Amino acid sequence: MATETETPHFKRMALIGVGLIGSSIALSAKRAGLVDSIVGCARTARTREKAVELGIVDAMYEDPAETVAGADLVIVCSHLGSYPSVGAAMAPGLAPGAIVTDVGSVKGCVARDLGPHIPDGVHLVPGHPVSGSEKSGPEAGFETLFDDRWWILTPAEDADQEVVQRVSAFVEALGSRVEIMDAKRHDLVLAITSHLPHLIAYNIVGTADDMETITQGEVVKYSAGGFRDFTRIAASDPEFWRDVFLNNRDAVLETMGRFTEDLIALQRAIRWGQGDQLLELFTNSRDIRHRIIQAGQDTDAPDFGRRAEPPSESD
Amino acid sequence: MATETETPHFKRMALIGVGLIGSSIALSAKRAGLVDSIVGCARTARTREKAVELGIVDAMYEDPAETVAGADLVIVCSHLGSYPSVGAAMAPGLAPGAIVTDVGSVKGCVARDLGPHIPDGVHLVPGHPVSGSEKSGPEAGFETLFDDRWWILTPAEDADQEVVQRVSAFVEALGSRVEIMDAKRHDLVLAITSHLPHLIAYNIVGTADDMETITQGEVVKYSAGGFRDFTRIAASDPEFWRDVFLNNRDAVLETMGRFTEDLIALQRAIRWGQGDQLLELFTNSRDIRHRIIQAGQDTDAPDFGRRAEPPSESD
Repeated sequence: MATETETPHFKRMALIGVGLIGSSIALSAKRAGLVDSIVGCARTARTREKAVELGIVDAMYEDPAETVAGADLVIVCSHLGSYPSVGAAMAPGLAPGAIVTDVGSVKGCVARDLGPHIPDGVHLVPGHPVSGSEKSGPEAGFETLFDDRWWILTPAEDADQEVVQRVSAFVEALGSRVEIMDAKRHDLVLAITSHLPHLIAYNIVGTADDMETITQGEVVKYSAGGFRDFTRIAASDPEFWRDVFLNNRDAVLETMGRFTEDLIALQRAIRWGQGDQLLELFTNSRDIRHRIIQAGQDTDAPDFGRRAEPPSESD
Repeated sequence: MATETETPHFKRMALIGVGLIGSSIALSAKRAGLVDSIVGCARTARTREKAVELGIVDAMYEDPAETVAGADLVIVCSHLGSYPSVGAAMAPGLAPGAIVTDVGSVKGCVARDLGPHIPDGVHLVPGHPVSGSEKSGPEAGFETLFDDRWWILTPAEDADQEVVQRVSAFVEALGSRVEIMDAKRHDLVLAITSHLPHLIAYNIVGTADDMETITQGEVVKYSAGGFRDFTRIAASDPEFWRDVFLNNRDAVLETMGRFTEDLIALQRAIRWGQGDQLLELFTNSRDIRHRIIQAGQDTDAPDFGRRAEPPSESD
């Protein structure tokens, strides 16, 4: 879907939320020279001070309407659960002709929660950078976060194509590859590629934690046997993920149902010693890993290349 | 449990199997100067040639009895499912006073499958290095694989303590930290820290692969959203893992049962919009990640430090 266009430029970019994604957008937009000025909005004084101190933004505000005033590009980077109140609070400040986009991990709820607050003459183009890390907060941001990652846009069918093109060009200039998709399809694809994996990771970490009463610290001690891979994504921002699951309920429940069915079948195969069935599944799994590496979506270095940076010797 | 002792020395180390673990033991033992000569055994001519060509061993044999003849240290590094036949095949060659150990990921089955083949005057000390990578084969081995990782030994209660001490000193000299543990406890701890995580990873990869019929390649495309973390361990050696699950059935079924119960509870919380319950689980999960990093069992670098080596641009 990506097409070549001239580099877009915005006079004033307003970020509602300056956590990992918001601060990375700011740093990346500066790197590419896409904006004249950047302002941000955060609920807590600590985050506002931190964002200014780190040089991420030119100014920080507490009030969303004040933040978006005069901005030609507004990017909502706060948790999905905040969208109804953020939408209502920023609405009075939105300038005619402004473009509003967001970075939320669920897209079906954006039209529902932000849509009603967007005045006539202001454009809404929901978006989602498929990128991130388990770290959060303005300190976690870095300018290369979006490089070579996908950024999905889910404009409404009747969206102004010129505006969609401007947003596409902007996120491409941040380093991303753009894909345009229907919001419902986005939510199903992300349910399986991101939401279910996070849920499973959280769940296994919870199960293991409960078992620590039996194993007395040994889960942590022997985590290099595989468990630690799951704990990385289970260390992600808790409020962020709560909002994802509450807002993508149907697609998540659908994929969970499939996952559980498959797991029960596997459990049965183990109980009855059906080695051939296990071998078939395990053999197929190698292939998908190979395809992910081929597609440039992960490193082929053994152990994610972790050994490049040895673990600390603090124990 | 680890104690300071003088560096042990063996005249002839025989490796039954020279895959990732066997070849890494060879390279690591050479690094530390622990052995005069190393011989190995492999079923296929290709592996035998490869191991010699890579300089991992001094000689390779097809017959286990011939391999272990004259060896004072024998390390069984083949898949768990091969233990009964390997035990029977090597028995006639075992020299009096030799020490036999193994590197299998399940320990309860070793006494059952290797035990009956160990002649009087030969010592069996089962072991398990909690280390590895998703790569397999002799080419995958490297000398630092065991550095700062745990190596669990599960000697029988009546084992010769001097022999256990010699094996401990050997694996410490390979770079590992030693822990002595009851085989049954090992199998429960590893079920939760390693076997269940691998099973879950294989399962979610399978579920996602089935959903590719709906999502047409998008699972691979957007795998950076979390899914790719699971695919690393799901790319591990299929036969190896089949044998683990068949041989640690009871502990795996027990932990699977707990995991599924917890998952169903989570599914219900999502269905009924119980955000507080989700938030509580997600918040606790951060803590266990923190403890793993504190214990030196993983890197704190965001994204496992993957960005040190950018993915290839082949797509």
